[in-house]
Amino acid sequence: MGQNLARKILNEHLMEGEMTVGKEIGIRIDQTLTQDATGTMAYLQFEAMGLPKVMTDLSVSYVDHNTLQTGFENADDHRYLQTVASKHGVYFSRPGNGISHQVHVERFGIPGKTLLGSDSHTPTGGGIGMIAIGAGGLDVAVAMGGGAFFTPMPKILNVKLTGKLQPWVSAKDVILEVLRRLSVKGGVGRILEYTGEGIKSLTVPERAIITNMGAELGATTSLFPSDEITLEFLKAQNRAQDWVELLPDADATYDEEIEINLSELVPMTAKPHMPDNVDTIKNIGPITVNQVAIGSCTNGSYMDLMRVAAILKGKNVHPDVSLVVAPGSKQVFEMIAANGALADLIKAGARILEAACGPCIGMGQAPQTDAVSVRTFNRNFEGRSGTKSAQIYLASPEVAAAAALTGKLIDPRELGDYPIVTIPPEFIIDDSMVLAPAVDSSTVEVLRGPNIKPVPLNDAMPETIAAAVVLKVEDNITTDHIMPAGAKILPLRSNIPAISEYVYCQVDETYPSRAKAAGMSFIVGGHNYGQGSSREHAALAPMYLGVKAVITKSFARIHKANLVNFGIVPFTFKNEADYETIDQMDELEIPNIREQMQNGTEITVKNVTKGTEFTVEYDLSERQISILLAGGQLNYTKMQAEAK
Amino acid sequence: MGQNLARKILNEHLMEGEMTVGKEIGIRIDQTLTQDATGTMAYLQFEAMGLPKVMTDLSVSYVDHNTLQTGFENADDHRYLQTVASKHGVYFSRPGNGISHQVHVERFGIPGKTLLGSDSHTPTGGGIGMIAIGAGGLDVAVAMGGGAFFTPMPKILNVKLTGKLQPWVSAKDVILEVLRRLSVKGGVGRILEYTGEGIKSLTVPERAIITNMGAELGATTSLFPSDEITLEFLKAQNRAQDWVELLPDADATYDEEIEINLSELVPMTAKPHMPDNVDTIKNIGPITVNQVAIGSCTNGSYMDLMRVAAILKGKNVHPDVSLVVAPGSKQVFEMIAANGALADLIKAGARILEAACGPCIGMGQAPQTDAVSVRTFNRNFEGRSGTKSAQIYLASPEVAAAAALTGKLIDPRELGDYPIVTIPPEFIIDDSMVLAPAVDSSTVEVLRGPNIKPVPLNDAMPETIAAAVVLKVEDNITTDHIMPAGAKILPLRSNIPAISEYVYCQVDETYPSRAKAAGMSFIVGGHNYGQGSSREHAALAPMYLGVKAVITKSFARIHKANLVNFGIVPFTFKNEADYETIDQMDELEIPNIREQMQNGTEITVKNVTKGTEFTVEYDLSERQISILLAGGQLNYTKMQAEAK
Repeated sequence: MGQNLARKILNEHLMEGEMTVGKEIGIRIDQTLTQDATGTMAYLQFEAMGLPKVMTDLSVSYVDHNTLQTGFENADDHRYLQTVASKHGVYFSRPGNGISHQVHVERFGIPGKTLLGSDSHTPTGGGIGMIAIGAGGLDVAVAMGGGAFFTPMPKILNVKLTGKLQPWVSAKDVILEVLRRLSVKGGVGRILEYTGEGIKSLTVPERAIITNMGAELGATTSLFPSDEITLEFLKAQNRAQDWVELLPDADATYDEEIEINLSELVPMTAKPHMPDNVDTIKNIGPITVNQVAIGSCTNGSYMDLMRVAAILKGKNVHPDVSLVVAPGSKQVFEMIAANGALADLIKAGARILEAACGPCIGMGQAPQTDAVSVRTFNRNFEGRSGTKSAQIYLASPEVAAAAALTGKLIDPRELGDYPIVTIPPEFIIDDSMVLAPAVDSSTVEVLRGPNIKPVPLNDAMPETIAAAVVLKVEDNITTDHIMPAGAKILPLRSNIPAISEYVYCQVDETYPSRAKAAGMSFIVGGHNYGQGSSREHAALAPMYLGVKAVITKSFARIHKANLVNFGIVPFTFKNEADYETIDQMDELEIPNIREQMQNGTEITVKNVTKGTEFTVEYDLSERQISILLAGGQLNYTKMQAEAK
Repeated sequence: MGQNLARKILNEHLMEGEMTVGKEIGIRIDQTLTQDATGTMAYLQFEAMGLPKVMTDLSVSYVDHNTLQTGFENADDHRYLQTVASKHGVYFSRPGNGISHQVHVERFGIPGKTLLGSDSHTPTGGGIGMIAIGAGGLDVAVAMGGGAFFTPMPKILNVKLTGKLQPWVSAKDVILEVLRRLSVKGGVGRILEYTGEGIKSLTVPERAIITNMGAELGATTSLFPSDEITLEFLKAQNRAQDWVELLPDADATYDEEIEINLSELVPMTAKPHMPDNVDTIKNIGPITVNQVAIGSCTNGSYMDLMRVAAILKGKNVHPDVSLVVAPGSKQVFEMIAANGALADLIKAGARILEAACGPCIGMGQAPQTDAVSVRTFNRNFEGRSGTKSAQIYLASPEVAAAAALTGKLIDPRELGDYPIVTIPPEFIIDDSMVLAPAVDSSTVEVLRGPNIKPVPLNDAMPETIAAAVVLKVEDNITTDHIMPAGAKILPLRSNIPAISEYVYCQVDETYPSRAKAAGMSFIVGGHNYGQGSSREHAALAPMYLGVKAVITKSFARIHKANLVNFGIVPFTFKNEADYETIDQMDELEIPNIREQMQNGTEITVKNVTKGTEFTVEYDLSERQISILLAGGQLNYTKMQAEAK
């Protein structure tokens, strides 16, 4: 019985556990990446471990999030990241060099290697045949220290592509179709492995669009094989030596399978406010568009921007549309500047932004009140754009360019001939914005600004948790709900006491003060709690506010791991109907929680206010239970070190 | 006796008064410009006048300040500006089209015309022979309504340039030399008219650097003749028809004269925290530089960026320097994108920002804590960069480029051969980002976002002012001190109640609440009070907080006019020593102020707390006194209209 590619690579990296679906495995991590919004915490945690150098093959620290720099905090963070990287053997990609995922695929990713990144879109690396997984910063810090990365063994879902994309239909439409079929929780506990004849017509940048936005399925990661198309890309990046052919066995088996005929796809969009709220452009009709934003780690590649430039060339942006374009990397920026495409974009009326995440993470370009904004990005959660009333539509660069020209959401096939854009035989290679670590780390002083505060530690789990449900929320809560990003809050990422004032502030602005006043507290949620961004601040800041347990119908993978890492118990209802019996501010009690968690998989919770009881479950490994009892991974690691 | 050029143009436009130095004159305004941070108020005030169309030859509304858009407010303001412009006959320059002053010189300015702009750097237009004056938004609104602009008749100061700039010495060094000699108050009550053989070697973009930064002298404006060099520039802009030769008479006389030998100038910089704190680079020594910022209305021209690109070509930005470059206009951006210079900048490691004011107004790119930042901008007031502890050095693009490469403030002559950059025979002409007003204004609906609030009105002057000195400040207070800009506060420019919470917040964060609690209040200040930006919010917001009079040793021109416009009396000490006798929170009393101000030029103020008295003066026209008694220009205009 043949093996699929995902299992082959995982098997190659297995350090602990058995590859049985649902059981925890520990895998060796070859490469790590961090970005600046999660990276400061990751390196503070790495420093706390006391190791002189990272133990990985390669670790890269990128700056791509906090690039507007509206206060001193960002530049101080950049300086900290630069110096701490130099000291500990980490490569540093300077602000302006581009978005981590784009640059990593261009310059660093290697087929068959594992990559752990403190950003949920790390699976972009699956476009060149890596097992690339997003995780919390603490998990990445552990991996940099040579520790295994633990995750439940996922199911491998075969996404078989047949046919060929028609003109004006693009890779973005493929992943939108997958989201339409599977939903934002359809990937949970799964790796999507793309196979079939259809993949032969997809270049690496196009494959990377699909693996990137696989994050929106809640998947562990997504994966393409490393084939002759991968080789062609790596050759063009002057990295042919990094190529190795990696294919599933001819008779490979999979846990699940879906099939998509690329020939049948049409231009689509994800409507507000979820990436799986997908419909065809035709069905939605020509609604008026106020803003168009092109770029991000999903669609900021050379191929993407060349297509947009070709569509806009010689035309003008509609007078009622603000078009912003941000290249995905310095390589992309330099190439379109050198070949005239950037001049075409500027001439047409595009506003050009720095090569960074920018508006995708709410870092500027908030649209007007009630705006319709068409974006080539990966998430359209309510408020993430910086404008709460804005309606965000996710679409391909082709759809975005058509909207920019016409001021309407129209099927781009109405524009006529589809411009032919091919992958260049050679990209411009210039890694001068990547700084190698110091040869002699004793010469490096790590510089910390006044906003960079130590990581707060949790207490060990108490014997009894008796506390109020200070917040009750619905299904599909994202980490953007829990710990918003955007230009005002992101600069506080290195300062947990300060950022904790904004936890859930867009859902209930009284929450942080109520939680603090309560001391200990619970949160109750619905299905798919904690989907979206990998930010560990969505666990770390609630921990700082005193949250001891979150009780939900189900969790998103990365957030659940982050809760464990910071000592917050992720409980699920045994009987989902019990969700309805709890009101916000009910007092709950779990006696003897320490003892109970070591002896069983379910616990009875008293609702003191209602005089009722209900049962919660927890699907946690022994390792995770030990971490929770210790009050989090940092305490646990310390205890283990002291025990030795 | 021959006439100088400034008097010729003023005489041509004289509507009221006599051209006697110090006496108020009213001049006809041919063109106006606004930017978005002052423009929303200007158009709200224009709307309040009830006129269907502007009465000027040309009015242009630019968007260049609030371009980061970290919340919905900016995009709402842009939409308001776009629709109100279309309705009332104003051209609208879209965000991304560039900085008002750069674009206005390129595409709209006409030699010999008057230009009034709601931005203190409006004198940039003097580079092509305009009388271009910065003023508060209300003055610009009045001018759009066909009203005269009132100002004390300035002295005309002849700045005679001889010799020729040496390699690596540039126009920025000329204006730094003027600032070194005259100081930030040396231009008050003056127009600087540039003459002499030296001007023949200065192109229009170089002349515009000098007139632009004449604003830092406190001058009414600065002026170059319109000669064959002006013609060459206008021809290259496809605007030869706008040219007219305008020269001073051969035997012209001036009120004052200084002479500068260009051949003797060397690279200079204005050290923290004032533009007149000028020294040579050599004298300062090679201090370590953390950030370099190139662009702004001073040095964002094609010539500037081509020089920087030539210096950086084939080299790399120093690893410890963050270099940001913002083109001054879409024309500049498109040209350097088309000719490869932008690719050279990106390759070298420059971070490219949108064509807008950007970091010059603290709109992003705040440097790290305690940073040394070398900027080609025009102001280095403390905190304006967004980082209070940062040390800002103002210098030429040549000095900035040298610092970017070496990480040190060095004399750029150390770099070797000076790149030869000449003005192009043809600029790329593309006005597609400038929207003409609607032909039929009845079809236009003016759209207002929820943050756009009506202009608050003041009460008429009371009979007696008895109030505390809620704030006492030192010399050289800037409008950045009074009403800070930056990414956090600028979005509130259309909302006076909200922005008034930030008045003087960087000087004394308790001030706004103390002023509000006091009801009526005084401010006491030193010399040159209100220098810097033209922002009328520095008068409007204090008015909203209840300030009735500001007593200083002297005022900057635009701010004094703004105070009058909003009904705050600008008093000066008859005896400067009395400044020392007043402490913050002293209670002052001016009985019968209405009657006193109509009968005399000085008033006795009782210091009730100290039991003393002192005398204040006011240099105000009858028109201005009437405005003050009415409680400001809007009340005055309304009273006049009702009287008719």
